[in-house]
Amino acid sequence: MTSETADTSATIDFRSDTITRPDEAMRSAMAKAEVGDNVIDTDPTVAELEERAAATLGMQAALWTPSGTMANLVALCVHLRRGDRFLATRDAHVLANELGSGAWLAGGMPEALEHDAGPGRPSPSAVKKAAGPRKAPYYALRTTLLCLENSHNAAGGAITPPDEHAQLVATARATGLRVHLDGARLWNAAAALGLPPAALTVGVDSVSACFSKGLGAPVGSVLAGGEDFVAHARRIRQMLGGGVRQGGVLAAACLVALGRVSSLKDDHANATALASGLRECGWDTTEPETNIVLATVPDVALTIDRLRAAGILTLPMAGKVRFVTHRDVTSADVAETLRRIKAGPR
Amino acid sequence: MTSETADTSATIDFRSDTITRPDEAMRSAMAKAEVGDNVIDTDPTVAELEERAAATLGMQAALWTPSGTMANLVALCVHLRRGDRFLATRDAHVLANELGSGAWLAGGMPEALEHDAGPGRPSPSAVKKAAGPRKAPYYALRTTLLCLENSHNAAGGAITPPDEHAQLVATARATGLRVHLDGARLWNAAAALGLPPAALTVGVDSVSACFSKGLGAPVGSVLAGGEDFVAHARRIRQMLGGGVRQGGVLAAACLVALGRVSSLKDDHANATALASGLRECGWDTTEPETNIVLATVPDVALTIDRLRAAGILTLPMAGKVRFVTHRDVTSADVAETLRRIKAGPR
Amino acid sequence: MTSETADTSATIDFRSDTITRPDEAMRSAMAKAEVGDNVIDTDPTVAELEERAAATLGMQAALWTPSGTMANLVALCVHLRRGDRFLATRDAHVLANELGSGAWLAGGMPEALEHDAGPGRPSPSAVKKAAGPRKAPYYALRTTLLCLENSHNAAGGAITPPDEHAQLVATARATGLRVHLDGARLWNAAAALGLPPAALTVGVDSVSACFSKGLGAPVGSVLAGGEDFVAHARRIRQMLGGGVRQGGVLAAACLVALGRVSSLKDDHANATALASGLRECGWDTTEPETNIVLATVPDVALTIDRLRAAGILTLPMAGKVRFVTHRDVTSADVAETLRRIKAGPR
Amino acid sequence: MTSETADTSATIDFRSDTITRPDEAMRSAMAKAEVGDNVIDTDPTVAELEERAAATLGMQAALWTPSGTMANLVALCVHLRRGDRFLATRDAHVLANELGSGAWLAGGMPEALEHDAGPGRPSPSAVKKAAGPRKAPYYALRTTLLCLENSHNAAGGAITPPDEHAQLVATARATGLRVHLDGARLWNAAAALGLPPAALTVGVDSVSACFSKGLGAPVGSVLAGGEDFVAHARRIRQMLGGGVRQGGVLAAACLVALGRVSSLKDDHANATALASGLRECGWDTTEPETNIVLATVPDVALTIDRLRAAGILTLPMAGKVRFVTHRDVTSADVAETLRRIKAGPR
Repeated sequence: MTSETADTSATIDFRSDTITRPDEAMRSAMAKAEVGDNVIDTDPTVAELEERAAATLGMQAALWTPSGTMANLVALCVHLRRGDRFLATRDAHVLANELGSGAWLAGGMPEALEHDAGPGRPSPSAVKKAAGPRKAPYYALRTTLLCLENSHNAAGGAITPPDEHAQLVATARATGLRVHLDGARLWNAAAALGLPPAALTVGVDSVSACFSKGLGAPVGSVLAGGEDFVAHARRIRQMLGGGVRQGGVLAAACLVALGRVSSLKDDHANATALASGLRECGWDTTEPETNIVLATVPDVALTIDRLRAAGILTLPMAGKVRFVTHRDVTSADVAETLRRIKAGPR
Repeated sequence: MTSETADTSATIDFRSDTITRPDEAMRSAMAKAEVGDNVIDTDPTVAELEERAAATLGMQAALWTPSGTMANLVALCVHLRRGDRFLATRDAHVLANELGSGAWLAGGMPEALEHDAGPGRPSPSAVKKAAGPRKAPYYALRTTLLCLENSHNAAGGAITPPDEHAQLVATARATGLRVHLDGARLWNAAAALGLPPAALTVGVDSVSACFSKGLGAPVGSVLAGGEDFVAHARRIRQMLGGGVRQGGVLAAACLVALGRVSSLKDDHANATALASGLRECGWDTTEPETNIVLATVPDVALTIDRLRAAGILTLPMAGKVRFVTHRDVTSADVAETLRRIKAGPR
Repeated sequence: MTSETADTSATIDFRSDTITRPDEAMRSAMAKAEVGDNVIDTDPTVAELEERAAATLGMQAALWTPSGTMANLVALCVHLRRGDRFLATRDAHVLANELGSGAWLAGGMPEALEHDAGPGRPSPSAVKKAAGPRKAPYYALRTTLLCLENSHNAAGGAITPPDEHAQLVATARATGLRVHLDGARLWNAAAALGLPPAALTVGVDSVSACFSKGLGAPVGSVLAGGEDFVAHARRIRQMLGGGVRQGGVLAAACLVALGRVSSLKDDHANATALASGLRECGWDTTEPETNIVLATVPDVALTIDRLRAAGILTLPMAGKVRFVTHRDVTSADVAETLRRIKAGPR
Repeated sequence: MTSETADTSATIDFRSDTITRPDEAMRSAMAKAEVGDNVIDTDPTVAELEERAAATLGMQAALWTPSGTMANLVALCVHLRRGDRFLATRDAHVLANELGSGAWLAGGMPEALEHDAGPGRPSPSAVKKAAGPRKAPYYALRTTLLCLENSHNAAGGAITPPDEHAQLVATARATGLRVHLDGARLWNAAAALGLPPAALTVGVDSVSACFSKGLGAPVGSVLAGGEDFVAHARRIRQMLGGGVRQGGVLAAACLVALGRVSSLKDDHANATALASGLRECGWDTTEPETNIVLATVPDVALTIDRLRAAGILTLPMAGKVRFVTHRDVTSADVAETLRRIKAGPR
């Protein structure tokens, strides 16, 4: 999106990076994709995506899924036995934004960990404490999984840096927990840090990542892990109805997306500019590490309504107003947003 | 597929009509599709597809899903309470081909009905008997749903005609059962009968139908029903991870598919020719009503292996060898198939 | 129950052997039972029962449960992974009489096997066919468990003799299936054959048996299997809420019951006399092998109503009228029953 | 328990009030209980208990269950639809001590509320905030239930007084939540306050209460609610395997227990004396409101081991050492406990 000036009457949509529309490069790739029946056979484009995504994420294998919600759900189903407790950060997507599927479908009993080590991340000691003793009586709840999220949506796109990630994984290992990383926006964390995505997955048992957010693909996520994990995951995906036929038409767009990770830095710059401008206007916002700005306001619903009246779309998140920057919002759009906000009441 | 002569060395793939690849018309439609975020908003192309599919199927509303398996699973989740028994024909897709999701995920206890009224369909009296008394003690299993399948895959693509359908629905109503119709290949039944699809859904509470089989779309099915049913189904779809973002790229192809129902008659003619030829070769086959031919052989695995060695791909189905004709198999391919079979042992 | 003559006005209750009331010996044992907290500790009387029941059933270990339904449900939960298919005989208790818990709670997809080898038992070839190929694609339903029932309630208390049992178990093993035996009335089968119960459990992975049916204990069943199986089962029992505290008060009665297996022969003699008498009256009944008589009648509900009007209580079972003989029905009661039936219309 | 002096060598067991053994009055009642088949019929003693318990708890109807875990699980199954979120206090029994059954079996996504209004109870504002907006988009997690616990085990037997209870219930109502009260030790709260139990259940949709804790019955709890709720609960109980036959033998003891609520004050006095003595010894303990004392120590496992070595049995609870006083611990036992503790290191 290279428009230099924003339309002063147009709606500016910060609701989510999921709204990004596929561009011509993606549409062209989709139109030319080589395809096959990916249930009873192999779709070559899906296979290529899964191979490249696994390599990029530093895992043995990967599995395409129609959504990040399904990628996380499949992971929980593979990792959890009936009634197992899993730990996740407060307001993590798997807790707050997947309609309870981790409990109903995966059968897991969740426990929210506070973000006591910083936005979006628990401390190793909190993980250790919540994991409980490794040896427990038969009638005790059994904790078996730690879910991390990087970058962390409800924490305003906050990043868990590699050293803290390593400590959390080490703590999980030491207390007998597996680790699943919800990396829906792992690409943003990697781009912001200037690191390859695989630098942020060290030691995890599984990681999900999404092509349909900032990277702009229309549909699709990936779940990566070891060979056995992915074989099991493939079966669970089929049970859930996530096995599709000529998925290559979608995977082709995901492959284009996979080549664009570094471009996310533009979104991050826009988020920084937005937060800075909002604070100049007296708003109380997070300092964005990636592409999300959270604003603390007295009445979330009221503020969202007022912004909407000014042609600025946002969504509530974890008791705050969330702005997400993405490919379909330009720096001029940010400037126009700030102009409108300065002109009106919060 | 208009080639007049088949390549004598090429593989001919009768495994499933799911292998059909999108053609240029579909790819072009996908490339040009208007899209939106179909989770937090509405994708206009998905909305158009859902509206047209609902009308075509004679229902109030419809919901796109990534697969027919998910469409059926969502329907069962909406219809069934914990432990409810549901009736389906023996070897129905919901019983035999969805990895037990109807039990695990929808929590339903299935009961298989024999095809005692003809291939693919139970008799009303069998439904009535299996439904049990309407008034039962609290500790009794409760039967609440009848699943029909038209055309019926494991019965060789057999059709339940409108009059028998009406009797089955009436019986279900009289015994307190809801009715879900697995119409993955309802289009084939409609095309074969020369009737609009809605003529085959009269009285049902929900119907699923697939665009990714004979109609050639790469990905996508639809689940149709009343407004309330679809609202509930939308929620369940999201829980399962079937809510996708710019689904319009897929729905565009499904819209093209929806315009092609009558073309399925070509596949049916090919199936008839194939069955006729196989019987001339001494094979014991079903008489196809649509696009499926089942052959009864002494050793299914052995026959499938031998056919594969001759470049003819098939799959096992309900203890038989299944040939499915579809857009990517021509009449010349059928002739070539028969030539190869005549030349070799069964 | 030693009354020589039956009260001609009293109700005679053939509804189930579950109605048997604890006698003085049981009540006295309960009143004197040594007890402990069987959740966080061990109840000595429960422990004694579990040890003796395991030995009697020829298994390594056993677990007390409040009901046979829970014993079977726990077994299915331990044996089945999500979506696994399990085989059971048509109208088996796990299919027809446990409110769908095998599907909802254990997540299993059931398949009913016909009683093609005789009442209550499938043929080894039917098991083999239903089990499917051992090697199947990832998207195929996976069959992992065979549930047998001996004696078989819905088959009129029919016995699977040891040689047929052995063949079924061998077939299950050869096709990769585990075997659970619902032995709610295994004691009846053993008593009828004059064999120790362990002679009827050879090779199974788990067996449930009930003390609260013909043996007369007020509450309690047992689930037996290998050490690891029972350890897992203990955990599942606790999840379901079946872990009780001072269970010894119940186990004491179960221990008394365990000493009475041979007395079941009296019930069998009464069933034989009842069936014989009914046939003399022109009824179409099964020939009882144990303590159940099934009568085929034109209108089950009507016959049950008429019998009730004559002071004879029965229940419907698998489309027939079921009479169950038990400790609280004497031979004089049987004679009185026949007298009343001769005096009235069926 | 009236012994004036404690055995200086005997083990003193503070692990739980669940270890209380039935006394002669209970055993005698059990031995004489009138019974019936409570699945297919009605057991008169169970019926009497259910009626009296419902009246005592101020509800329309009640259902006996084998355990408090099952009572809570049944309540969650009735109240929750798939994926519904439920709120409960941190470390509540339904979250921490039921092996995840609320998630796996009831399909609920839990959310822990801090005890911000006092030990064992959340503030109305926290409930309101956690409940979320009443109107939410279809893809949002839906919160439908508030679980309270009174007295609160992990909060050291803390009581929620009637006025705070009323405010919590009113808040739940105003935000569209149902209310389930885990009243496993509701009797203790009532005895401590000198109020009838029904004074503590005002406005709830369901309440569970336990006879097998401080009241000394060997086995059994009750779940009370409206007529429709209990009818549904009865069905769920049967599915879970909690329907037992001659349950009257247990209900008879529960009836004796129901007559003993006021005697719990003795246990409370013992708890107060124990806490007071421990603090004199320099321990950091809660001030007991009922029969539980929690001690904060540097190393819970180590302290429990040392106490065990001194013949004093305790259990860990919520990161502390828990002492529970009950019928089988006398005031002399408390004095002896303090004597031993004074004599040894913590």
